[in-house]
Amino acid sequence: MVLEWVDFPLPGGPKRRMFIFSPIVIYIFWLKYLLVMPMELRSGYVRASGYANKIRKVLFAVTRGKVDPKEVVRAAAELNQYLFEKLREMGVRKEDVVRISIGFSIEAGEIVWDYDSLRIEVYRREEEERLAQAMEEVEEREKALDEVIKELEKLAEQLRALSDEIVEKVEKLKQEHSGLKLRAEE
Amino acid sequence: MVLEWVDFPLPGGPKRRMFIFSPIVIYIFWLKYLLVMPMELRSGYVRASGYANKIRKVLFAVTRGKVDPKEVVRAAAELNQYLFEKLREMGVRKEDVVRISIGFSIEAGEIVWDYDSLRIEVYRREEEERLAQAMEEVEEREKALDEVIKELEKLAEQLRALSDEIVEKVEKLKQEHSGLKLRAEE
Amino acid sequence: MVLEWVDFPLPGGPKRRMFIFSPIVIYIFWLKYLLVMPMELRSGYVRASGYANKIRKVLFAVTRGKVDPKEVVRAAAELNQYLFEKLREMGVRKEDVVRISIGFSIEAGEIVWDYDSLRIEVYRREEEERLAQAMEEVEEREKALDEVIKELEKLAEQLRALSDEIVEKVEKLKQEHSGLKLRAEE
Amino acid sequence: MVLEWVDFPLPGGPKRRMFIFSPIVIYIFWLKYLLVMPMELRSGYVRASGYANKIRKVLFAVTRGKVDPKEVVRAAAELNQYLFEKLREMGVRKEDVVRISIGFSIEAGEIVWDYDSLRIEVYRREEEERLAQAMEEVEEREKALDEVIKELEKLAEQLRALSDEIVEKVEKLKQEHSGLKLRAEE
Repeated sequence: MVLEWVDFPLPGGPKRRMFIFSPIVIYIFWLKYLLVMPMELRSGYVRASGYANKIRKVLFAVTRGKVDPKEVVRAAAELNQYLFEKLREMGVRKEDVVRISIGFSIEAGEIVWDYDSLRIEVYRREEEERLAQAMEEVEEREKALDEVIKELEKLAEQLRALSDEIVEKVEKLKQEHSGLKLRAEE
Repeated sequence: MVLEWVDFPLPGGPKRRMFIFSPIVIYIFWLKYLLVMPMELRSGYVRASGYANKIRKVLFAVTRGKVDPKEVVRAAAELNQYLFEKLREMGVRKEDVVRISIGFSIEAGEIVWDYDSLRIEVYRREEEERLAQAMEEVEEREKALDEVIKELEKLAEQLRALSDEIVEKVEKLKQEHSGLKLRAEE
Repeated sequence: MVLEWVDFPLPGGPKRRMFIFSPIVIYIFWLKYLLVMPMELRSGYVRASGYANKIRKVLFAVTRGKVDPKEVVRAAAELNQYLFEKLREMGVRKEDVVRISIGFSIEAGEIVWDYDSLRIEVYRREEEERLAQAMEEVEEREKALDEVIKELEKLAEQLRALSDEIVEKVEKLKQEHSGLKLRAEE
Repeated sequence: MVLEWVDFPLPGGPKRRMFIFSPIVIYIFWLKYLLVMPMELRSGYVRASGYANKIRKVLFAVTRGKVDPKEVVRAAAELNQYLFEKLREMGVRKEDVVRISIGFSIEAGEIVWDYDSLRIEVYRREEEERLAQAMEEVEEREKALDEVIKELEKLAEQLRALSDEIVEKVEKLKQEHSGLKLRAEE
């Protein structure tokens, strides 16, 4: 009865030999393959003190439009927790520079880390003084950027509130002082 | 067993003699009295051609904050339909001036017209030429006002859309380029 | 030597017989005719208490795009001062209704009233009760409109200030955190 | 006649012994000292390909509020031109990393470079592979940031234009449909 079999590669895991019984089953596997996207996250060089932010930012950038922001925050927090333990075990200090890469897949809207593919490079400050210093500078610049973005965010929120107020006031003008068709009448 | 009775005035209707048996019953009547607000709508002088808009505007103004806008639109449409028939029966022409008043109550968020209290005054153009002319002028001015409000409404809607875009762009800036805490993390 | 003559009508004044000597002179008269626009202002029916506002609003509407707003304010004030005296002389009370019309011309950006063409109609309240009452209602409605416009004006000014702040903040972002070409470099 | 002398330090240059003749002269020197602010610009580590942008950004940040933006752009262009020649003479390639520092002063609103204090460090890619790679990553991230800022800038300009339109429309509403005092009347 069995027509054929395939080696179906699970993302970031071992292959599994599947016995195919009918076209329907093939179709289901094909669908699943479409939904599971194998991807990679690379932190680039970053000071150990800033790895968590970097992981989150890069994850946001590479999953933009594919994953709900809340899931990105959750997945980043999960990985960062794991990395925190690992880096502590390795005796990494915050002034050292690290470079992290890990594979992951998006399954039904969820980010699934492939911890087996995790790779951490560590550069001690005393051995790579200039690299450490350069990344420290980058970090400082990003703090200044954060300040501007924070201010801009407040202004943008004020703008939204003000827009709503203006829209509401114009609506009042329309309801009580004009003969225009109202939205509620359409 | 009966302790006392009260004449409870139904809004816009006859009084009904109530026999009170207990404080509970009194409390229920008091509650109902709070929920049922007897009110009046007066159109003021208006050209017959513009009575419908006027009714709606005045209804919006007098029920502001008490009734859902959709219910105002519905109730105004109901009354205007009724008035349309009445004015036709009375042989009112669009160049005549009318003045309409009617009682209503708000019951559980709904506007209930008291048609028994409806009063319509009609002033024929040939007899009240100046009044008719004055109201025609008012109508024309309101058309000009409508134009400005329409333009302002378009601008306000553009503003809201633009605000949303700016907020979104700043959020992107924050997610991908900063170490700031995201809303989703809080 | 004289080729022809024309009766040139001065705006709001007597005609003057002009002897034309050359095409240049004709051209000058034609130019002047273009610059001098004879126009009329009609207040429509209005309560005596509100004539000044009405005059100003109508003047703004009919001269829009042709005259500087400051000149409109000045010319309206001039006419209203004149009307104030006239209406007092005529014994008009604030509850009466008036209707005013006057010719004017725009000469080199200035509004010149033709006081000879001024026409004032007065309707006493006791004789035209309904007209007076209708105009009183209109006045009250306009006061409510004023309230909304005032609020909207405040919001619009806040919007302008906020926009400037956002533009400035984005400019700062650009200057200090990006490699984009600045306006000052173009 | 000479009462005393001082060693006046010229910004970024040698001291000069000054003979003081009167309090007036002292006052003049004190004033000049206030107007001449000796400062320093440090590029930090940066890929040679991006030194010009970096110089400009840092100059904007350190002179913010003290110098006109146009002067900042001019002074940055002047220094960058000078650096371009220097780096070419030194055989620096765009993939190398450099670190530049130079003193300058602000005299009567103008940025004056103290070229004698210029210091350029060069790190060849082959010798500092990781540093070069890290700075390349930084550069790429900044390009992504530039994109978002560019979009945000466009939105901010649209916002400003829209705000102006709304303010104008509300002004029209006020002029032609309300009895409110106009700005021109105040």
